[in-house]
Formats: sequence, C-alpha cells, structure tokens
Amino acid sequence: MSDPRPIGVFDSGMGGLTVMRALMARLPNESFVYLGDTARLPYGTKSADTVRRYAIQASKALVARGVKMVVIACNTASVSLPQVAQALSPLPVIGVIAPGARAALAASPDGPIAILGTEGTVKGGTYRTAIRAQGSDVPIVQQACPLFVPLAEEGLVDGPIVDAVIRRYLDPLLATVPRPKALLLGCTHYPVLKAAIAAVAGPEFMLIDSATTAAEAVAELIAAKDLTAGGGEPSLQFLATDAPDRFARVGEIFLGQAIDPGTVELIDLQ
Amino acid sequence: MSDPRPIGVFDSGMGGLTVMRALMARLPNESFVYLGDTARLPYGTKSADTVRRYAIQASKALVARGVKMVVIACNTASVSLPQVAQALSPLPVIGVIAPGARAALAASPDGPIAILGTEGTVKGGTYRTAIRAQGSDVPIVQQACPLFVPLAEEGLVDGPIVDAVIRRYLDPLLATVPRPKALLLGCTHYPVLKAAIAAVAGPEFMLIDSATTAAEAVAELIAAKDLTAGGGEPSLQFLATDAPDRFARVGEIFLGQAIDPGTVELIDLQ
Repeated sequence: MSDPRPIGVFDSGMGGLTVMRALMARLPNESFVYLGDTARLPYGTKSADTVRRYAIQASKALVARGVKMVVIACNTASVSLPQVAQALSPLPVIGVIAPGARAALAASPDGPIAILGTEGTVKGGTYRTAIRAQGSDVPIVQQACPLFVPLAEEGLVDGPIVDAVIRRYLDPLLATVPRPKALLLGCTHYPVLKAAIAAVAGPEFMLIDSATTAAEAVAELIAAKDLTAGGGEPSLQFLATDAPDRFARVGEIFLGQAIDPGTVELIDLQ
Repeated sequence: MSDPRPIGVFDSGMGGLTVMRALMARLPNESFVYLGDTARLPYGTKSADTVRRYAIQASKALVARGVKMVVIACNTASVSLPQVAQALSPLPVIGVIAPGARAALAASPDGPIAILGTEGTVKGGTYRTAIRAQGSDVPIVQQACPLFVPLAEEGLVDGPIVDAVIRRYLDPLLATVPRPKALLLGCTHYPVLKAAIAAVAGPEFMLIDSATTAAEAVAELIAAKDLTAGGGEPSLQFLATDAPDRFARVGEIFLGQAIDPGTVELIDLQ
C-alpha cells in the first residue's frame, strides 16, 4: 500500500522551511504542501488564543489541499497541537516540540538542558512542559532570543553583528552552574544560525535542532500508519498568505535552495 | 468653540507611540485614543493591498470610539492615506509621510536627502513620491533598515550591537557622493535610536524625525478646522488587537512613560 497524497507543513512564515528542508532530505519520495502565514507573522509575540485560532485556520486550509497529515513546523504554534489535532481528527498531526524535547533528553539525560526560543515559547515554558511530560526532572534553563529571527530573515548568519547578538543571549546560559550540556534550538528559524551559535557556544555543547528531530518523527509516523508515498515523482507546493515574492526570496535562506516565485500561491485565511 | 473629542492615533503596533509622545508634548490639552494592531504587526513586510485593508479597519474602529480626526502614525500604513481618508470622509486624516517629506526638504532643499525606512516604505518609494509631489527633484538615497524595529522593540537602543547595525545601514549612505545632508527617520520606531544614529552619522547630518513633524501638522490642522479641545482634563486610552501586557511593557520604550496594562483594552478588528 502506498499513499501519494502530500504532507502538509505549516508555519507562521518562512522559518518552517528549515523543517521542510529536513523533511525533504529524510523523505525524498514524499510530496509536500507548505503554508506560510506571512500575513500574520510573527506568532512569537502573539497570545496563545490568537495563535491557536490561526493554527486551526491554517491546518484546515492544508486539509482542503488534500494532505495526508499536518506538520506544525512552528514552535510557537506547536503549543496548539492538541486543539489542531482535535479539529483535524482523524488526520495525524505532528508538532516540533515533543520530538525536540525527546532529542534533548536523549543527548543530555541528566542536564542541564538549555533552551533557546521566541518570547512566546520561553514564556509559555513549552519545552519545559514537554520535557516534564517525558517524566524527567532534569534542570532546564531558558533564554528568549528575539533578535535571532530578524537576523535569520535578513540572511545575516555570520559576522560581528551575529556574534555579538549570540553572545548577548548565550553568555548568561554559559555562566550557569552547572553548565548546560545540550542546547536546544527551539525555533525553526535558528538552524540557519547553527554554525555561528556552535562557534560561540564551544565544542562541549551539543546542539539539538528541532527540524531534524521533527523530520525523524514524521518518517516514523508515516511508516507506522502505512502512509508512505510510492515511487512517483514527488511534488512541492508553496502557499503564502501575503507577499509571495518575499516568501520566495527570504524562503531560500531557510530551504537552502531557490524557490521560483511563480510556484508560491497567495491564499486568504480570513 | 472647542471640541473635546479625542484624536485617534493608529499604528501597526507600538512604534507609533513615538508619534503619540510628540503629539502629547505638542498638544497637552488634547485627549487621545491610540490603536496598535499588534495581532497583525509588522506591516513593513506586507503587501500594499493587505496594509490598506488593515488601515481602513483600524481607522473605522477609532471612528467608532468617537474620535475627531485620525493620525496614521505608521509610515507603511500612511501609503494608504487616500483610501483611509475616503473611507472616513469628512473626518480629517493625517499621515506621517507628507509632514516628514516637507521637513526634510526644508532642512535640505538641495539635498541629497537620505531616507531610512522599512522594506515596504523603501521599496514603495513612499518618501520619494512625497518629495516629488512637493515639486522637488532633489537627489534621494534610500536604505531599508529591517533590524532597527526588532532592536527598538527589545529596548536595545545603544551599545555595540546597535552601533554595528547602524553602521551596516549608514555606511553606504555616508559613502554616497555628494554626501547627504539630511537623514529622514522614515519609521516611527526609529526615534528611540536617534541618539545612536546621530553618533554614528556625525554632526554634519541633520536628523529629521517624522514623529515631531507629524505632531506639528496635526496642531496646524486642528487649529485651522476649529477642532482644538477646551481646558478639560485630557484623557488617554490604548487599544491593542493582541497581547495588551506586551503592549504596555514594550510601549513604554516608545511613549517614554509607563503604561498601566489595565488601561490597554483588547479589541478585535477581524
């Protein structure tokens, strides 16, 4: 049995394309529909109620495109996973939080684990809750990194400005006693800053990238539920709620390959 | 004759509070209702159609609060001034673009004039159009400064990160021949970075702040139309479309005075 329907991937904007990139690398035979809610980004500073409403709207738009499952490729929106899963039931829904939490625990079972994220993710204690849900009482330190997203969206991923911003956020974490051993990149934008973060953090730090861990979780799920695509030519489709040209231009930074602006369809979620 | 109704001020978020601050300083007897569309910020990266739709919704919400005029305290949304003015007619509407353009021309009639703004303001050539509409063919150079808004919203207004970012944007402008004489801060967030920008730019540069020039234009308009408030106690009201707590906390940076979170009312524009 095979299921040629595409996998739906949803993010507040372009950052989730790092998850899409990891998914395409891990599942080269699968087709994907990616929806970036560019008209309403960023989600990181919005209230939980608003994010929940947006996440359900976006996921339903993906279902209307005939997807076989939905990946919430946005840390902030992943908080709404239970509500989205309920709204889409019985279609499977996966977020990036639980896979990231499991990977951080596997890398550093005794901690401390350091978590970098948006203001929303850190304030909501999203990863802390997910790690505790795994039955672990490992010490956790968190740091909101609000300047990482604009840096990443500018394609500014190395150099003196980037290093100074990384030091601003990492210095307090590096000074924590005991020093954290695993550093979880708890926002889909952050993987493009991975090399610069690793250089500042030093070699003792293990960097956990939730894009890679989420892709692994999706691969396991579609295998378990017999949803794997056959051998046909996989397709790739992009939907954006605003400014498709900017989506293509900035998206390239995160997807790691060119996006033809003509392949980005403008849709309305209102 | 006096008109005690409040003046409505609209921005995509908190940046317009620099305009509100200038208005309160210039018109201490006036009452104000400020609306920040925090659920949908930033406008700078959104398409003109989307921004126009949002600006009309927000302005109508201010009218429903009984304002006597509307100030579009957002450079990006000011592009929609004609459409907002038409939707609100006969209520007067003022944007920040024309006053800023007039002030820059007055400061440097022969130019060159340098304009700093969001991606949307620069790409749309908003100030260029406004300066040309004044009948001037003065040379104009523009620079989008996408990292200024996140820096300002972090309250990061001086220090090495700020200086490095300012140099990144100003160096190409400072190298222009002939060197610009006036530098227009074409985004309401930028006035909080004014001191740091002035330090990098040097004393030969004249910095034009569109908050101050817009406040002057509002003062002239209400005097001309006989809309000035009497001597009663002025009131101050804040409306936000999301996260009133964050509005109060971050807004303080721009307003230059504390905002009681209890005075920020959550409203829905959808």
